[in-house]
Amino acid sequence: MHSDDRIPESQLVRPGEKVDDLQRSGLRIIQDPARFCFGMDAVLLTGFIQEGIGGRSMAREDMLDLGTGTGIIPLLMSAKSDLRTLTGLEIQPDSADMARRSVQLNGIGDRVRILQGDIREADTLFAPASFGIVTSNPPYMIGGHGLQNPDSPKAIARHEVLCDFDDVARAAEKLLKTSGHFYLVHRPFRLAEIMTTLRDHGLEPKRMRLVYPFVDREPNMVLLDCVRGGRPRLTVEKPLIVYKEPGKYTDEIYEVYGY
Amino acid sequence: MHSDDRIPESQLVRPGEKVDDLQRSGLRIIQDPARFCFGMDAVLLTGFIQEGIGGRSMAREDMLDLGTGTGIIPLLMSAKSDLRTLTGLEIQPDSADMARRSVQLNGIGDRVRILQGDIREADTLFAPASFGIVTSNPPYMIGGHGLQNPDSPKAIARHEVLCDFDDVARAAEKLLKTSGHFYLVHRPFRLAEIMTTLRDHGLEPKRMRLVYPFVDREPNMVLLDCVRGGRPRLTVEKPLIVYKEPGKYTDEIYEVYGY
Repeated sequence: MHSDDRIPESQLVRPGEKVDDLQRSGLRIIQDPARFCFGMDAVLLTGFIQEGIGGRSMAREDMLDLGTGTGIIPLLMSAKSDLRTLTGLEIQPDSADMARRSVQLNGIGDRVRILQGDIREADTLFAPASFGIVTSNPPYMIGGHGLQNPDSPKAIARHEVLCDFDDVARAAEKLLKTSGHFYLVHRPFRLAEIMTTLRDHGLEPKRMRLVYPFVDREPNMVLLDCVRGGRPRLTVEKPLIVYKEPGKYTDEIYEVYGY
Repeated sequence: MHSDDRIPESQLVRPGEKVDDLQRSGLRIIQDPARFCFGMDAVLLTGFIQEGIGGRSMAREDMLDLGTGTGIIPLLMSAKSDLRTLTGLEIQPDSADMARRSVQLNGIGDRVRILQGDIREADTLFAPASFGIVTSNPPYMIGGHGLQNPDSPKAIARHEVLCDFDDVARAAEKLLKTSGHFYLVHRPFRLAEIMTTLRDHGLEPKRMRLVYPFVDREPNMVLLDCVRGGRPRLTVEKPLIVYKEPGKYTDEIYEVYGY
């Protein structure tokens, strides 16, 4: 995977950017703290996808990540699975460029590619029903109301400024094969809407896991595994608890992060 | 509440039936173990409703319980709230009769009444938009396929033989006032369908709590609080964990049960 065509860090990293070690197969990622850095949600989603794959070979399947940002999900999934190809689609040119440079930095351009483009036009960029897995860590917040800088990279990553959840679900529906899986992470406060939208697009929620910061707190993330054309029956999994005490992760979190 | 018009137990209890103490304001309930006894789900639902009411006075509001069985939900809610009236609707004549005798046994006929009738005809039995609260612990299992005795009291209480969830949600929609609350308990494996059906009927899920038997197990119940005509925004609450170790309830369970 880490072939000799890796380009040295000095040629790939721009001023203001930093390179973080992903603690997984030596993978590294380029990020710009002034723009948007990946969060725990993206990492937990890759752990959830890995469990969903459950050790099966995916060597004949291709994955598409909708709104990939700096490419964290395809990068991690390239190490956590044997998926044939992993494609990240990102609308923001600077983020897409940074993700592309991370692919080069890791020398994994044979499997991972980054495309700059709009989720709402995804069906013109890819052949219908051409992916076995679609993933997304979409913007969580509704609309851009009250935002001071609705065009800022952070606002676009966090708020439904350039696309909403219906756009994401529509793209997943069109691009997934029948029985293909759509994995996503979102906020629990949107859960009822999200489930309705997913089912409207023929994406049946089959597995769900709630992420609770502490065992006695409200969850702040929800992980979902949906099957295109699946039959209705949802498995809600045991709670994923992040901290056993303030500042101390649970064993499961350490495991997902690969420490 | 326990006025002198209480009828003595000996005149109300039939052979084979038992009288259980509800550990709440001296309330007792008549049940027949050969038919169907209430479970933890009904009790946890009343705790969840009580939290939803949050100490506010409901003295001008009326409650309807759809599929009340032996009347456990109206009985407990008569003690846990100041609701003006509490009505239980039950299709099975024997269960309705038992519930009615429990009302007499407790001498609470001034507030609690039991009607024998069909959820699918609820809109002909009550005036539209006439309840501030509708509750239900409906049959959880889909259809009556493979059932040996689809007409047995237990099958009717557990399986969607005589009504399905869409019938329950339709009745709640018609009978609730605008901004009235529909509280229900169901199984997590039905959650995606249930949320879609609720929203199809204008019942917006606003609070949800998952009940986990142990902290490291899948949940086996889901409690939902929906508002008729509510805006989309769901609060998923902290997990409700039943056992801290095998055979030992958590403090919260003891509290709900009122020990």
